[in-house]
Formats: sequence, C-alpha cells, structure tokens
Amino acid sequence: MGLYHDLKEYGESGFYPFHMPGHKRNLQSGCLSGLYQIDLTEIDGFDNLHCPESIIMNAQERAAQLYHSEETYYLINGSTSGILSAVSAVACGGDTLLIARNCHKAVYHAAFLNHMDLAYVYPEICEKYDIAGEITARQIKERLDAINPMRKVAGVVVTSPTYDGICSNIREIGDLVHQYGIPLIVDQAHGAHFGLHPLFPENAVCQGADLVIHSVHKTLAAPTQTALIHKNGLLVDSEKLRSYLCIYQSSSPSYPLMAGIDEAIRIAEDEGKERLSLLLDYRKELISHVAGCKYIRICPDTEPGKLVISVKGTSMTGQQLYDVLRRKYHLQMEMASGTYVLAILSMMDTKEGLKRLSKALCEIDKELYSLEIEKFLLVHSKKVPEKRLELWDSFLKTYEEEDLDCALGRIAAEFVNLYPPGIPLLVPGEVISAQFVDMIKEYQKKGYTVQGVNDKKVKVVV
Amino acid sequence: MGLYHDLKEYGESGFYPFHMPGHKRNLQSGCLSGLYQIDLTEIDGFDNLHCPESIIMNAQERAAQLYHSEETYYLINGSTSGILSAVSAVACGGDTLLIARNCHKAVYHAAFLNHMDLAYVYPEICEKYDIAGEITARQIKERLDAINPMRKVAGVVVTSPTYDGICSNIREIGDLVHQYGIPLIVDQAHGAHFGLHPLFPENAVCQGADLVIHSVHKTLAAPTQTALIHKNGLLVDSEKLRSYLCIYQSSSPSYPLMAGIDEAIRIAEDEGKERLSLLLDYRKELISHVAGCKYIRICPDTEPGKLVISVKGTSMTGQQLYDVLRRKYHLQMEMASGTYVLAILSMMDTKEGLKRLSKALCEIDKELYSLEIEKFLLVHSKKVPEKRLELWDSFLKTYEEEDLDCALGRIAAEFVNLYPPGIPLLVPGEVISAQFVDMIKEYQKKGYTVQGVNDKKVKVVV
Repeated sequence: MGLYHDLKEYGESGFYPFHMPGHKRNLQSGCLSGLYQIDLTEIDGFDNLHCPESIIMNAQERAAQLYHSEETYYLINGSTSGILSAVSAVACGGDTLLIARNCHKAVYHAAFLNHMDLAYVYPEICEKYDIAGEITARQIKERLDAINPMRKVAGVVVTSPTYDGICSNIREIGDLVHQYGIPLIVDQAHGAHFGLHPLFPENAVCQGADLVIHSVHKTLAAPTQTALIHKNGLLVDSEKLRSYLCIYQSSSPSYPLMAGIDEAIRIAEDEGKERLSLLLDYRKELISHVAGCKYIRICPDTEPGKLVISVKGTSMTGQQLYDVLRRKYHLQMEMASGTYVLAILSMMDTKEGLKRLSKALCEIDKELYSLEIEKFLLVHSKKVPEKRLELWDSFLKTYEEEDLDCALGRIAAEFVNLYPPGIPLLVPGEVISAQFVDMIKEYQKKGYTVQGVNDKKVKVVV
Repeated sequence: MGLYHDLKEYGESGFYPFHMPGHKRNLQSGCLSGLYQIDLTEIDGFDNLHCPESIIMNAQERAAQLYHSEETYYLINGSTSGILSAVSAVACGGDTLLIARNCHKAVYHAAFLNHMDLAYVYPEICEKYDIAGEITARQIKERLDAINPMRKVAGVVVTSPTYDGICSNIREIGDLVHQYGIPLIVDQAHGAHFGLHPLFPENAVCQGADLVIHSVHKTLAAPTQTALIHKNGLLVDSEKLRSYLCIYQSSSPSYPLMAGIDEAIRIAEDEGKERLSLLLDYRKELISHVAGCKYIRICPDTEPGKLVISVKGTSMTGQQLYDVLRRKYHLQMEMASGTYVLAILSMMDTKEGLKRLSKALCEIDKELYSLEIEKFLLVHSKKVPEKRLELWDSFLKTYEEEDLDCALGRIAAEFVNLYPPGIPLLVPGEVISAQFVDMIKEYQKKGYTVQGVNDKKVKVVV
C-alpha cells in the first residue's frame, strides 16, 4: 500500500525504460542506489502530481485525512513553493499583504512576484530569551484598522510556530481576520507534528486557517524539500491555488520525494502518537536534568518540539555553545543565535540522543560563570525601519554597492537576512539606519552569516 | 571526492542531529533508507545552495567545466525553475518575449509571472513524421523585424532539441539575436548529453546561447527533478539570475538530489564518451534491423538520443504501438503521439534493452498493413490561433466554463495542453476556433490526455 510500495514493485517488474529518467534504474551508487530504483516519470499507472487522478491523489487524500483538511497538496519544492502559491492565490483580492515581520523570506518573495505592498505586524520580543514572541489578534486588528481603507488587504500571513517554537493563537487570529472577509495563511512549516498528540499544540488547519503550509521534512520523517499545503473554507479559490502550484513546481516532480512524504504520513498516522509520547518522556528527563544547571536554561515557552537552550548572561555566547556541542560532543544543533542555540526534536529522536545532549549541557554548565555582556542587538528589533519604497518597486531594480558606513539614509535594494533563520533584517525599499549598521557589524563580528552584506558593502537603490 | 562522498562520510560519523530533517537519519525504509542516510540540512561544512562557498560551489564548478560554461547553477526544482529564473532575469530588458510556439509551458508561465507579452515563431511541421521541425534564424529575424519597434523584445527562447529530438541551429540563431542586442535562452532540457561525444550535436553553451537549461535527469544519470542552468556572456545580469533562482527554489534544497547531480556529472565526465559510443553502436544495430521492416520507420532527423518510431500510414496508431510494446513486451516508451511513439535513450541504456525493442518492433511490423487514415490533426498546427488578449491579462482571471461546442469565438482563460509533451495547443487570451474544437475532439477520441478540457468543457474569459 502506498506510493513507495507501488514504485518499488514497478522497479522490480522487469519493464525496460525507454523514458526518463536517464539513469534507467541502471546505476549502482551506494546510498543513492535505492533512490534510483524507485525514481520514475509520469508513465502509465503512476499518475501526475500536477493533475492527480489515482495513486498521487490517494496519497494526498491520506494526508488530508491526517490533518482533517478539506484539500491537501504535496509540495516537492518545499514550503517555499507552498508559500509562493498561497500568496499568489490570494493576490487577486487586494494590493496589500499584511504579514508578521518575522515571516520567512519566501513570503517577501511572493509579495514581490505579485507586486503587493507589505504591511507588518511586529512580534513582541521575549527579553529573557532573546526570541521573537507571538503575534496577537489584537495587533492584527489594530494594523488592519490603520491601513488606509482605499488599499484592500488581500490576506494575512503569520508564522506559527516560529523557527524557535513560539506559537500564536491561530484560532483567535483566524476569527478576527475572517471578520474582515480576508483569508489567513499560516506558515506552519515547523508544525507538521501539531495535532498528532494531545500534549502538542493544535494544528492550524483545525484552528480555522484558510491555507496552511507544513514542511514534512522539518518535524516529520520525510526527506528534505518536501512539504504539504492545506486549503480550507471558501475564501481561497482552489483552482487558482492549483494553477500556481503547477507554476512554481517542477513539471518533473521526484517520485522518491513524493514516496518519502507518503511514508512520513504513514508513520505519523500509525506511530505518531506513541513516538511523540516517548519524545515527551525523553524531553522531560532532559529538562529535569538541565534544571539542575546553574546557568544554562531551557526556554519553557516553546512548543515541545524545540529546545531553545539559553546561555544569556553567562561567559559563553550561543555560537560558542554551538561550537563546543559540535566539536567536543558531536551534537549538531540546528542553529546558534546571539545568546542561545536551537535544537529541533522530532518523533524520530532517540532516548540516547537526548541523554547525550543532557549530559553535555550539564558538563558545559560547570565551566560557565556569570557575565553581564553588552546588550546584544536583537534580530527582531522593535525599532521599525522606515519604508520609503515598496518591495516590488525596489528589489532587483538598478542599484549600486555602497560601504555600510556610507549607506546611512540610503534605500536598500536587496534583502539583508541573518541566516539561519533567514528572516529579513532589512527589506528592499527600507531606509538604512544607524541602528541597522551597528547591528550588522555586531553580527559579523560575532561570526554570523549575514546575507546581503558582502565585504561590508550593501546594495542601495540608485 | 564530491558531494555524495562527503554526505555519506558525515552520515557515518556518529554526529547526533538536533536539526532538520526530522527523520534524523533514523529510518529504515527499504529503497529510501540510503536517501535518508545522506539527507542533511545546511549544517557546518555542507554549504548552502543559495549562497555557495565550498562543496556546492565546487560541485557547480565541476559542472561548469564539463559544459565549458562561465557560470553553472544546480537546479533542484527541475528545468522549470531554470526557465522561470532565466526569463525573469531578462524581463527587465523589455515588455515582449519572442518564443518558439513549441516551448514548454514553463516558458509561458514565466512570461505570465513577469507580465510579458508573447510573440511566437512557429516551427515547420515535418509531414512525414508528424513532428515539429527546427526554428531558423531567418524566421526569428522576420519576427523580430515585424514587431512594433515601440515594443522592446527582452529575449528570445527556443527549445533545442525538442522533446522529439529535433535541433535548431543555435549558433546561427545566437549570432542573429545578438545583432539585436538581445539575449538568447535555450531550453536544452533534453540535451544535457550534447557535446559529450563528437557524434552528438554540439552543446548550446558552446554555440553562444546566453542562458542554457539542461535537465540532467532526462538524458544524464541524475535523479528526476534535477537540472542545471548555465550563464555566459554579458547580456544577462548574473546577480539577477541568482536572485530569481533563490526565489523559485526551495530554501531547503535536497542534498540527495544535489549529490545525484554531482554523481551524474562525474559519470558524464569519466565515462560519458565511452558510454555514448556504446549507445551509438546499440542504436545503429537497432536502426539496421528496423530498416528491414515493411512499415515501421525510425525518423532519421532526430539527435541520436531519441527514437521517433513511426507507424504513420499503417493499421496501427502511435497509442496502439505504445500499448502493445508495454503490455506484450514490457517495454515502457516515453510517450505516444498520433502516429508515432517516442523512446528516450541515454548513456545508461543496455545492449539487451535495445535488442528487446528491436526484436519487438520487427515482430509487430509483421502484423501491420498499409492504411491511409484520415489526416491526423497536428499538435503544432501551422494555423495560428488569433490572440485577442495578452497571456497575463487573461490567465487566472475571472472565467466561466463553457461546452467546447459552444465556446467557438470565445477567448481562452486557461492553457490547453496535450500531455505529454506539455506544449500549449491554446494559450490564454487566444480565440477558440472551429479547427481547435475539432482537434481536441480528435485527441480525446483517440484517448490522449488533454489538460485544460474537462468533461468537454473549456474555460473562457467572462
């Protein structure tokens, strides 16, 4: 049963391929060998992702059932393609998109492609852990009411959970946004496991979002670059959504990736609850050990699938903690921020893995001492950059490169992102402030990857 | 050496993953197991496709060397993402895109996304084999000269080879197009093997095209959904191209897909010439056997990587030949058209595979007899549909569904494609003619998949 089974069976059938792919299932290449064995094109019996009628349609329906969604589509170009398609599908409804400032860059790209103006809601900053907090329905209401009524808002986009694991109240936000007759898009890339266990947050599909994007490779057991998009209610046109999914995704979609989605859905369905129960046990044990640490703290506000491990106020930076975990303990974290590291957990984690982390943190804690360092500048600064031009009017237009120090007061022509997590610090069309210049210098000094600033030069509109 | 090697070594290193992907390399799932073992995210040492500095940069440089290209970029969202990015990167240069009518739908999508008007060059039809012929420099010159000088042409797009294996003279077309100061984009999705052996056509990169897109999964040994884009000369802005590649491709690119590209490049480099020599031998033998057939003919005008196997004028249709090869001989063809089937060959084919095909064709030929059927309506009809609206002004706009028979004279709101090969029969904005209605009915009667016509209804602009 399922896509993988059908592909494997066909691979063993003795049919000779006078079709793509060119490897002809005739390539022995170690770990990749299995991939080649089940890598097909849209031959008879294997359906077509862009027009599904049989096995891919059934697979998508299995995913829809798991998430209680009216419609679910496989994404083989990641959540990126889901976000581009979601925003494009609602773009006809107005010229403005209201988004959380900490949205993924794909949301900005989608607004650019559709020539939409952007309005922002800024998350509160949790000072204790230096992470961006939730977005509230009240903030969105204030912003919607403040937008010039002549500018029609086509949709609202929020990210929940964030990369760090902070959730917003999607039910409240959905109810609010629907009062305005506007669709709500939830980038739930990091929450594909939500709703699969009662101690995890509810899923945005069930909370009333119109479009929800889930990266199944982030917290379920699917291969990288795979995702789902769910559509519910009547505010978004299904056909328009499907058209954009065809536009933004390869016309030669990978069957192994699709089979990987199907396998991950099957595992989530059959074993998800049990596996997440075990994960919660492992996590609880880790938390109780780390509670004995003098300095290291785990942020209690994230959903259980994340660990924000804070060394704020100690002699160690997040980057240093990340490095020592990696080099000394062979524990690879997801990312380092100024004062913390982020670990991503999933239902595939092992007890032994979390024990190793727990032990490492307790050891490292012994080497730390308290240190009140200069206040680290936050990514999600509440100081709002001034917007002089719209994104679509400034991104990829004629620009010149300018030294960071000489660019004060100029208009950005390119995104400046801190990677990870790839959230824009500066959006094309915004004015470069002294605070921005200081922030970038600080990040670079601390060894972070700042995309959009090369050799201390930044692109500005001519 | 290479991406695959590094990924495999890391997978065996004992590092515990507190990062994406969620399968944590902890999933035994048959053929997919190997995929999970080398499926990583952008952790230290593994570079970033969207900002490559080390192993991915090196891999891309190896590909550039193989094709003698100044710049080469990996595509993990197929040639589709390369075409979208190529057209978007040149879109700033004018409001019109001149394309071969038999371009892939991704070219149309790219024009739509960039609000570009489309002008067409129609390929000649080879009546003997019912396939679209080449596009000539002279045709393009005539069309360029005919376009209102107030409308600036941003670029020219041609497909060479076509899906059927017909090549155009890219060198001549490039020289001509460059005289107008315009960039030439060549969709060479089906020609990634060109230039690797002296008896195959030269590669479009070496023939002077500014942007060339190669599907490495079509004729090289790479997994489905992988491709390359090459950029040469100064007519296209590299940075703009890179920006669009980031926009149209997942921010979580699949490492197994990238490793698959690298492996295919390595095979092409080390073994390509020798393997293609063998393929030519196998092909020659097949051709000489089939030359003894009374009815079945192989089109001699395609590049050697394709076999257009014609049953025109016989008692069998292309679809019937396709079906008998599949059911009786377990030989899966790439596609069936009205009077022929298409086989895709690659350097991974086996002598035994081509022998089986050769034997099957000779057997089938014995059952055939001559039959002058009604003239089959051609996909790439020379009768040009009348354009009433531009693509961007009609696609995905408000529409209604209308019975095919009642839609005469109405304006199409959706593409109508024959799949495969996915080339538009009707483009949004064009008028539905009696000839079009007849053609669609004919295709549907013969059991073809016609995308865009459901239950004999077609979408028309309200």
